Amino acid sequence: MPPKKQLHLTAFMRPVSLHTGAWRYPGSHPDANFNLTHLKTFIQALEAAKFDAFFMADHLAVLNMPLEALKRSHTVTSFEPFTLLSALSQVTSRIGLAATASTTYDEPYHIARRFASLDHLSEGRAAWNMVTTGNPESAKNFGLDEHVEHGSRYKRAREFYDVVTGLWDSFADDAFVRDRESGTYVDVEKMHVLNHVGDELKVRGPLNIARPVQGWPVIVQAGQSDPGRQLAAETAEAVFCSPRDIDAAKALYDDIKGRAKAVGRDPEHLKILPAVLIVIGDSVEDAKEKRLRLDSLVHYDSAIASLSISLGSDASKFDPDGPLPKDLPETNASKTSQASVINLAEKEGLTVRQLAGRLGGYAGLAFVGTPESVADDLELWLEKGAADGFTVTFPFLPEGLESVTNKLVPELQRRGIFRKDYEGKTLREHLGLPRPKNRFFE
Amino acid sequence: MPPKKQLHLTAFMRPVSLHTGAWRYPGSHPDANFNLTHLKTFIQALEAAKFDAFFMADHLAVLNMPLEALKRSHTVTSFEPFTLLSALSQVTSRIGLAATASTTYDEPYHIARRFASLDHLSEGRAAWNMVTTGNPESAKNFGLDEHVEHGSRYKRAREFYDVVTGLWDSFADDAFVRDRESGTYVDVEKMHVLNHVGDELKVRGPLNIARPVQGWPVIVQAGQSDPGRQLAAETAEAVFCSPRDIDAAKALYDDIKGRAKAVGRDPEHLKILPAVLIVIGDSVEDAKEKRLRLDSLVHYDSAIASLSISLGSDASKFDPDGPLPKDLPETNASKTSQASVINLAEKEGLTVRQLAGRLGGYAGLAFVGTPESVADDLELWLEKGAADGFTVTFPFLPEGLESVTNKLVPELQRRGIFRKDYEGKTLREHLGLPRPKNRFFE
Repeated sequence: MPPKKQLHLTAFMRPVSLHTGAWRYPGSHPDANFNLTHLKTFIQALEAAKFDAFFMADHLAVLNMPLEALKRSHTVTSFEPFTLLSALSQVTSRIGLAATASTTYDEPYHIARRFASLDHLSEGRAAWNMVTTGNPESAKNFGLDEHVEHGSRYKRAREFYDVVTGLWDSFADDAFVRDRESGTYVDVEKMHVLNHVGDELKVRGPLNIARPVQGWPVIVQAGQSDPGRQLAAETAEAVFCSPRDIDAAKALYDDIKGRAKAVGRDPEHLKILPAVLIVIGDSVEDAKEKRLRLDSLVHYDSAIASLSISLGSDASKFDPDGPLPKDLPETNASKTSQASVINLAEKEGLTVRQLAGRLGGYAGLAFVGTPESVADDLELWLEKGAADGFTVTFPFLPEGLESVTNKLVPELQRRGIFRKDYEGKTLREHLGLPRPKNRFFE
Repeated sequence: MPPKKQLHLTAFMRPVSLHTGAWRYPGSHPDANFNLTHLKTFIQALEAAKFDAFFMADHLAVLNMPLEALKRSHTVTSFEPFTLLSALSQVTSRIGLAATASTTYDEPYHIARRFASLDHLSEGRAAWNMVTTGNPESAKNFGLDEHVEHGSRYKRAREFYDVVTGLWDSFADDAFVRDRESGTYVDVEKMHVLNHVGDELKVRGPLNIARPVQGWPVIVQAGQSDPGRQLAAETAEAVFCSPRDIDAAKALYDDIKGRAKAVGRDPEHLKILPAVLIVIGDSVEDAKEKRLRLDSLVHYDSAIASLSISLGSDASKFDPDGPLPKDLPETNASKTSQASVINLAEKEGLTVRQLAGRLGGYAGLAFVGTPESVADDLELWLEKGAADGFTVTFPFLPEGLESVTNKLVPELQRRGIFRKDYEGKTLREHLGLPRPKNRFFE
């Protein structure tokens, strides 16, 4: 029997849950997103469960929502990713550390240097979630009046990637000879001056740090749009995406792997890890009830606003505890969006209030059930070639995280589809990715 | 008897010694500047000796010296300050963590955020060494052909300071109410939108992190030039300077404190900490010999180039093991520089080779002697009002650092001029600096 395909699991933290109601859930630590002690406990639990990586989402503006929503949000303020992950590198030894950093609002020299430094400090566990920063409010914190347009952001991102990886290759792995006798610290024949001059960037180099332990930190990206998928196919080693179901996931998987092959890459060296909210209960009903309870903690004002946007009509006029009215008015908003909300309400028998809580909380892909039923879901996606693993987001913490590490992971291990221990030391080794060759030196 | 004036001591690391020969000294770890295990040992020794802070110097370009010098340099490549200090925050609990960051080649939103994050992660131990980046090669790593001119750099720095401190004040200290019942996470009435529009910068805010533990991280600066002194007087809380002797130090001390008073600040809230190389021996002769040995490890090619520059004439023609020739040719270079080199050679009876090693190694202020004689020096400067303490640089490590922490510090403690234990928790408390009021909230 051939060995079973293996799942990869990364924990998507912002810096704890993405779900707007999470901080109000019974047993939660309302300050957990901003309390290092709790974050240490979480990452140590994830490492004990042998997760591939701890993935720190990020954003660069507070005012990206109305004040009424902002006042209820626990995700708007947080530690900065590099400082947080560097601190966490010292209380862990194996789990990967993925930081989000923007190609639109930062400099390639800084970004190359910080990831190289994190990779050295963590002994080869750094990953860069390369984002172009979609939030249009960010521009205003960086001297601009208007957001940089989508096409320009992707053009700069592609060039930024070339510069950053070129800077990582500034020194051969054996450049630092440190020969006391001759007094030679670094062999300058093994140092490369990049001298990059492109349409968007001009960077001389070399980088002022030795080549990262992993050669290059692992490149992570979210590929959804067409330029996003193409950028991922050309550059990413792990893709974090948000398909709505297994068929959409399979199509996306095949598309991105096909594009990677078309540009001469080995599709095995690009892992597709859809984002999924996992809610575990003692029974499927229990898990569904937990989720409904969590959704009910999204404040109604925020929730109903989300529902109104999705429906393209004012949902605050509907009876909160009744079903969604049948005769919704025509909408100028997306008909697909309206149809999918109607479908969701019917499928799960949700009231207007419950539907609003769902849309205001977390409306993306979710696996909700027992450790066994969720393991079935994960295994099915893996087997069908819809995913190489998952970017897991937790509904509430610590309970929602502990139920994954203590109940779901042992079930996956029992099935032989998830590691019982780390086999390698670096994140590249966990993910089965090769160490990139230095383009300037053998 | 009134209580004695107290010394403040910070350790100037780059990230270990500034001295070019340090990595070749017997017993040194040649990779110490780039080895986290050694850095942990160093910072823990400094914390055990109750140093105020660990101060990480920085630079943003490798090619700031000829290749012949670069190949011998152990200071050109290093960890990046924020990632390093964040990691070190987890293996220490009291010592301050000062990171260098540039106002010329970075964005105020990023800088404000990273220091705030480091301050939270370290529970109030962060300091910002605010530099305008003097190294002209840096520009080429950030898209520019020419370095930004001195006056423009200082103009931007002054405005940058206003923006960063304004961003730190984005939230009142009690803004985060996290009230589960009402669902209010943050009181938006206690959030301030900066909306800064100036000549150099345009930044909206608010910052996406709570106000730092210290209100603001401590502001450190090197004030030498006239605009540098003025900027320090207006904004700095600790000044790191390089006077050549006690008279020059006293004049600088009085000048900066006077300028601070003139702009309405309490001069006590600005600590003057001259940089000093400290070399400890069993006897004064022993200490001097250690220093000569260290200087001799500066490669002769680099050393003689430094001497030639200082003399304004080609020193490679002189007999290396003879005295400096009496009949030096007229120079177009600085006559002050030539005169001070001649003076140094005569005063210490140095050969051309030894003089070259001194200038190629560390030519600034140095206290070289026994624990007692160096303690006399430090005490004299403190008593005469030439310093509030010192920014200590170590000649070689670990020995040079351990002789300070294990021999000099106990002598200072015996004299009652240095703390035997930390009295406060934050760096502000160590330095006797007040916590700044939030300018937007009571």
